[in-house]
Amino acid sequence: MTDAPMTAPASTATAGEVLSRYLTEQAGRFLRALPQAVGEAGARPGAVPSVNAPGGTAGTGELLRTVRRIGGAVHTFGALFEPGWAEEFRAELRWLLTLLAQEPAYARRSARLLAALDTLSATGSAGETGGPGMLAGHQGAPKARALLDRQLTLARTRAHSTVLQELRSARLHALADRMTLLVGEAPLLAAAAGTAGEVLLPQAARAVDALSVAVQALPLRRAATAYQGDALHRLAATGAQVPAQGRAAAPGAPESADNALAADDAPWHRVRVLLKRARYAGEVSGRTDPELDELDLVLDRHQEAADAAVTAATAARTPRITPATAYVLGVVHADQRLEVEAARYAFGSRWPSLSLAPDGWEGPPAPRTA
Amino acid sequence: MTDAPMTAPASTATAGEVLSRYLTEQAGRFLRALPQAVGEAGARPGAVPSVNAPGGTAGTGELLRTVRRIGGAVHTFGALFEPGWAEEFRAELRWLLTLLAQEPAYARRSARLLAALDTLSATGSAGETGGPGMLAGHQGAPKARALLDRQLTLARTRAHSTVLQELRSARLHALADRMTLLVGEAPLLAAAAGTAGEVLLPQAARAVDALSVAVQALPLRRAATAYQGDALHRLAATGAQVPAQGRAAAPGAPESADNALAADDAPWHRVRVLLKRARYAGEVSGRTDPELDELDLVLDRHQEAADAAVTAATAARTPRITPATAYVLGVVHADQRLEVEAARYAFGSRWPSLSLAPDGWEGPPAPRTA
Repeated sequence: MTDAPMTAPASTATAGEVLSRYLTEQAGRFLRALPQAVGEAGARPGAVPSVNAPGGTAGTGELLRTVRRIGGAVHTFGALFEPGWAEEFRAELRWLLTLLAQEPAYARRSARLLAALDTLSATGSAGETGGPGMLAGHQGAPKARALLDRQLTLARTRAHSTVLQELRSARLHALADRMTLLVGEAPLLAAAAGTAGEVLLPQAARAVDALSVAVQALPLRRAATAYQGDALHRLAATGAQVPAQGRAAAPGAPESADNALAADDAPWHRVRVLLKRARYAGEVSGRTDPELDELDLVLDRHQEAADAAVTAATAARTPRITPATAYVLGVVHADQRLEVEAARYAFGSRWPSLSLAPDGWEGPPAPRTA
Repeated sequence: MTDAPMTAPASTATAGEVLSRYLTEQAGRFLRALPQAVGEAGARPGAVPSVNAPGGTAGTGELLRTVRRIGGAVHTFGALFEPGWAEEFRAELRWLLTLLAQEPAYARRSARLLAALDTLSATGSAGETGGPGMLAGHQGAPKARALLDRQLTLARTRAHSTVLQELRSARLHALADRMTLLVGEAPLLAAAAGTAGEVLLPQAARAVDALSVAVQALPLRRAATAYQGDALHRLAATGAQVPAQGRAAAPGAPESADNALAADDAPWHRVRVLLKRARYAGEVSGRTDPELDELDLVLDRHQEAADAAVTAATAARTPRITPATAYVLGVVHADQRLEVEAARYAFGSRWPSLSLAPDGWEGPPAPRTA
């Protein structure tokens, strides 16, 4: 670990000052967004939200952004906090993240799947209706669309009701109180009195290390070669357990299926979590990396496509659907798995050119076990 | 047009000598392969061929290779032949090509689709059976496999019977007689007395021109960017008529569906035909280009995947199949369309680096209408 001076915050600032400033800002944002989110949720009681913003409604989106950042900072710089406090706080943040992420995730998934279906059937209307190159279920596309729409709307409505209920819960009020206390008063240990460069940088570097190690375990060279068909051909493999953070259950699937993902996808989802942590660690020290932000979006897309593929596969198991509907759902599933593969390709093409060692940070880490 | 000397055949040879030598060699090969092909076909009366070679059985494969080359040479250097003879001869060669190409095409398509299905279901057996990431029709994969196998075996058996019948026909005997006459005695015009460099090169260059012009009309820049989703999203568009040369009907589809392909695919199939002609024109003048050969294989793969996708879509319209079977056929269709896209990507990535102007040939042609 190097002890080069930090550039963005004044190099004379202590780690505690830098960290407190960051947490104060994020907690302040959280507290301002909370009443807005409650108002938004209440304004559409039990119904499908009218606002289709990709990140959810404005208030909820801001809550999600701040919760992710505060959780990331408390994780990465965990050595500077009172351990019991940090552990409890992170657990509550994870709870809120999972709670709030579901509804916007369903909204995005719905938009993604219905758009895919519309693309498939729109071109069809221009063609001949009898040719063998036709989508066999030309009549299946509207039915598949209606089925997915119905299932996702139901899932979204359920998620909305849960949010509405929990936003008034004692648990949320307790978390809001913690946030209020966090403004200017993070419970820091004596170690935080060191300079930001000496104390924060090595810990931020460790977050980058963890990311690099996880990425090295990915089949990156293979992913960077287009059309290996990996994402599609592995579509039958499942069973891996991944952290539930920020993930939503497939509609119609039993609760236990929440974490059941293609085993192949799990390491990519893990990298997504670590990449976000590395991003937020950079933000604490005033460093942002547009390339890292872009890769984060690529992995968000990876996850959303993987989840959408699961939804299509689950919908195909609905009893009493027609073969034409099932056929279209098969095409949609494969289409989403292709998007998974495309995201891996985008990641694999960009990652190697990414420099994770800005001035004052240590060089690329040597491989070691995670 | 340049009149630089040809290198491979002695530059003093006339165009007629060079062309006759090429046609004599190919016709000789045809005549040697013919009894072998007849014997092979008769040895497996009405049954599925035991030999699964990608190019069909040895004799049939050789017949196809020589018929393509002779037809290509007569087309490209058409100005040197008696027009009536050339036109009639090419029509008979096209007939034989279509006749012979079907059975091996079904064999390859069967191998391609069943292999894709086996990949999909093999990985499935290792996974958990209940997860939503599962191929919804885990039970659908064996049924889809059996359905495709049955339909393609039937189509192949029918194609075989037709070949068996036509190999004994007067039409084939007449074509064999033409081939015998072709050995050393191609009916050339006076123009063929010019030197090979002066006469053949400009005509071979025109074949390359035609290819370049057709390739320029392809969405090549888009194809060279991976994961544009073009091949998949266009899967519903049909109706384009393409030359039937070497193409086989989808099993179970009406005769008229033979030429019904995704409109999007037609220009690519056209480029495949032109690329083969350019290859064979090069061979006449003793010039082979390994890169062109490779691109030819890429476009063969493009066509086979497009045909396989049609077969999967057609099978999904079989009455009384289960939704699980239809779902798997949808995945298989999309998988084959992904292979179509992958072939376009491979072509789009390699074409620009291809030099089509070897020593003594004219430079890259200016665009003009085909």
